Amino acid sequence: METTKFAIPEIIFGRGSIRYAGQYALRHGAKKVFLVSDPGIEDAGWVQRLMDILKAEGIDWIYYPRVTSNPRDYQVEEGAEFYLKNRADVIMAIGGGSAMDTAKGIAIIASNGGKIRDYEGANRVQRPLPPMVFITTTAGSGSDISQFCIITDVKRAVKMSIITRTLVPNISIVDPLILRTKTEKQIIQSAVDALAHAIEAYLSRIASPFTMPQSLKAVDLILRNLQPAVETRSLDSLEQLSIASIAASMAFSNAGLGAEHALAHSLGGQFDMSHGVVHPILLAAVMRFNMPSCPSKMADIGRVILDKRLGSDNETGLAGIAKLEEFFASFNVSLRLSDEVGEADKQYLEPICKMAVNDACNLTNPREASWEDFLSICEEVW
Amino acid sequence: METTKFAIPEIIFGRGSIRYAGQYALRHGAKKVFLVSDPGIEDAGWVQRLMDILKAEGIDWIYYPRVTSNPRDYQVEEGAEFYLKNRADVIMAIGGGSAMDTAKGIAIIASNGGKIRDYEGANRVQRPLPPMVFITTTAGSGSDISQFCIITDVKRAVKMSIITRTLVPNISIVDPLILRTKTEKQIIQSAVDALAHAIEAYLSRIASPFTMPQSLKAVDLILRNLQPAVETRSLDSLEQLSIASIAASMAFSNAGLGAEHALAHSLGGQFDMSHGVVHPILLAAVMRFNMPSCPSKMADIGRVILDKRLGSDNETGLAGIAKLEEFFASFNVSLRLSDEVGEADKQYLEPICKMAVNDACNLTNPREASWEDFLSICEEVW
Repeated sequence: METTKFAIPEIIFGRGSIRYAGQYALRHGAKKVFLVSDPGIEDAGWVQRLMDILKAEGIDWIYYPRVTSNPRDYQVEEGAEFYLKNRADVIMAIGGGSAMDTAKGIAIIASNGGKIRDYEGANRVQRPLPPMVFITTTAGSGSDISQFCIITDVKRAVKMSIITRTLVPNISIVDPLILRTKTEKQIIQSAVDALAHAIEAYLSRIASPFTMPQSLKAVDLILRNLQPAVETRSLDSLEQLSIASIAASMAFSNAGLGAEHALAHSLGGQFDMSHGVVHPILLAAVMRFNMPSCPSKMADIGRVILDKRLGSDNETGLAGIAKLEEFFASFNVSLRLSDEVGEADKQYLEPICKMAVNDACNLTNPREASWEDFLSICEEVW
Repeated sequence: METTKFAIPEIIFGRGSIRYAGQYALRHGAKKVFLVSDPGIEDAGWVQRLMDILKAEGIDWIYYPRVTSNPRDYQVEEGAEFYLKNRADVIMAIGGGSAMDTAKGIAIIASNGGKIRDYEGANRVQRPLPPMVFITTTAGSGSDISQFCIITDVKRAVKMSIITRTLVPNISIVDPLILRTKTEKQIIQSAVDALAHAIEAYLSRIASPFTMPQSLKAVDLILRNLQPAVETRSLDSLEQLSIASIAASMAFSNAGLGAEHALAHSLGGQFDMSHGVVHPILLAAVMRFNMPSCPSKMADIGRVILDKRLGSDNETGLAGIAKLEEFFASFNVSLRLSDEVGEADKQYLEPICKMAVNDACNLTNPREASWEDFLSICEEVW
C-alpha cells in the first residue's frame, strides 16, 4: 500500500458534552476566545450557554456573529481583521458547516495573511493556525472533524475547497442534545450531506483501510436512522446520526471526495445552494457514472444499503443506487435540478461544469470526469 | 450516552513510510531529536536508517540506546536526565512497546519532574510533554497510538499502568516493511497482544461506538492473517496485521482494558514475562469469567471468530472462546502458567493477585473481579 495518512481531532462526544468547551479551550491556552456563531444558533440559546460556560472557567471572549450560509471570501477576511484587532487566541465556533468554515477561514488569514483565495486547493497553508475548539450543531458538514474548508469566491461565483492537515480542529465537541433544536429540514439536509461524504470517500482513489470501514458504517447508520429521527425526534436516533456524521467525516477528511462534490461546489457557488440540497439531485447520477470504474466498491455500498448481496457486483451496485434514490424520494427534497434552478439559468451550466473539473475533489474521483461528462450528468438530472 | 472521548495520533501508514520521520520531526520543531531504541533494532539496521533520514533533513540528534524489555522505573529516570542534559527537543522512538514506553516515561519525567511512580494510574500527568514521533517495529503493543505507558516498579515488582491523554504521541509512523525483519516468535507475540487489546477493549465498561467497530475489525484481521503471516511472511499479511494492531490500539487507548491485562501486568512484573507470552495463557479463562456480565458482547466477538452466529448469545460466545483457544494452540506458545513459572514460585500468586485488583485496567472490566477471583483464574490455568 502507498503511504496513507489519517488525522482526526480529539473528539468529545455525548449528551451534555458542550459543558467541557471551556476546559478544552483552557487546555489550549485560552485567555480570550474568539467565538464564532450565527443568529440562528443564538436564538436557540446555544451561544449564551457557551458564554456562561466560558465565564464559569474565567475565560474572556470576543463574539463574532457575522456568519452567513455559504460563507464568502470577504467575510473571513473581515473576520480575521476583527480577530487580530481584538488579540484573541483560541478560535471557538458553534454552528453548522458555515460557522465552522468561517472560523477556519479566519484562522488561516489571521495566521498566514493574504487573501483566502491564495489558499485554494490542497496543502497551501504553511504556518500553524490558532487552536480551534469546535462545537457542531448539525450532523453533516463534518467541518468539526475534517481538514476541509469551503469558502465562496464571490467574484468567480465558486465554492473554493481549501484542504490541509492544519485545518483539522484541535477539539471537536459533539453534543447530540443540540440536534434537538434543529428543524426537520436541517436534520435531513445534514444527514444527506454526511451520506454523500461517506459514499464519495468510499469510492475515492485514496480510500484506505482506515477510512473505508468508517464510510460503510456511516451509510448504514444514516439509512437506518434518518426516517425515525425525522418522525420521532428520538434522542437515540439523533445520536446515531451524530455518530454517522463523525464516521463519514473521518472518512472524507482523509480519503477526499469525488466528482459529485466537485460539481456540487460549482453549482452551489453559482446558485447559492447548500450541499444538503444538491446531493439528492446529483448523487445517484454521479454514482452511475462512476460504476464502470469501481464495480466491486459500488457493490459493497449496495450491500450495506440493501442489507444483502445480489448475483453480481454490477447488479448489487445498481440496485443499491436505485434504493438510494427511493430513500431520497421518501423525504420532502428536490430530486431534479430544475426544482431549484430556473430555466433561464440553464445557460450557466456549461461554465459551471468547466469550473467543476478543476475542483480539488475531482482529483480523487474513481473515474476521470471531463466537463462534458459533468454537463451530461446535469442534463440527465435537469 | 455518557460523554466519551476519542483521541489518536496522526497516523502515517504504508510501505516505506519511515522516510517521513524527519519531516514530521521538523514539523514539531525538531532541532535536536532524542532518539530512543535498542540493540535489536540497531542490528536490524533501522536506527542507522533513521539517523540517515534525520541527517538528510539537517536535524541533529542524541541517541539513547538503553532500552530493555519491560522497561524499569530507574531506566526512564536516568533517560530523562540524559534528555535534559543534552537539551533535546522532539522525542523519537523506534522499536516495540518497550522502546516506546521508555520514551514516554522519559517524556513524563523530563517535563513533569519527580519519579515515574508519582504518575501511576489515570490522568496524573499535569504539564505538557515534548512532541513525540514514534515508529513502531511490531504490530502489537500499540504504544505508538495509545495513551498508555507501562513501566515496571522494581521495588514493588509490578508493571505500573500510566494512562493519560498527553501520552498519545503526536505522530505514529507504521511501516509494514519493518515487520519483515521480525522473528516468527515476535510476530506471534505482537499479534496476540493486539488481539487481547481488541477483545478487552470491546468488553470494557467504557467501550464506545468509536472503539467497538475497531475492536471487531482487529479480531477479524488477526484471526485471518496471523497464520499466513507466520507461514509465508507475505507483505500483504504483515500489512493486515499492522492495520489490525492500529485498530486494536485505537480501541483500547480510548476504551481501556480489563481484568486480563490487570493480571498480566502483575504476573509480568513479578516474573518478567512479556504480554505476548501471558495472553494465550490467561485470555480465554478471563473471558469465561466475564461471560455472565456481557453475553451479548461476547457473542459479537464469537460471531467474528466463528464467522457465524449460533443459537444463543451464550452458545456463540462460548464457542468463540473455545475457537480462540484452538487458535492459540495452533502456534508454538505456552498455554499454561506452569509452562512459564516454576512450582516454587506458586507462592507469589496470592500477592500478585492482590496487586492486580488495584491495577487501573481492572476498573473497566465488565465484571467486578476480586483478588480471589484472580487467584482462581490463575489456578484454573496453572
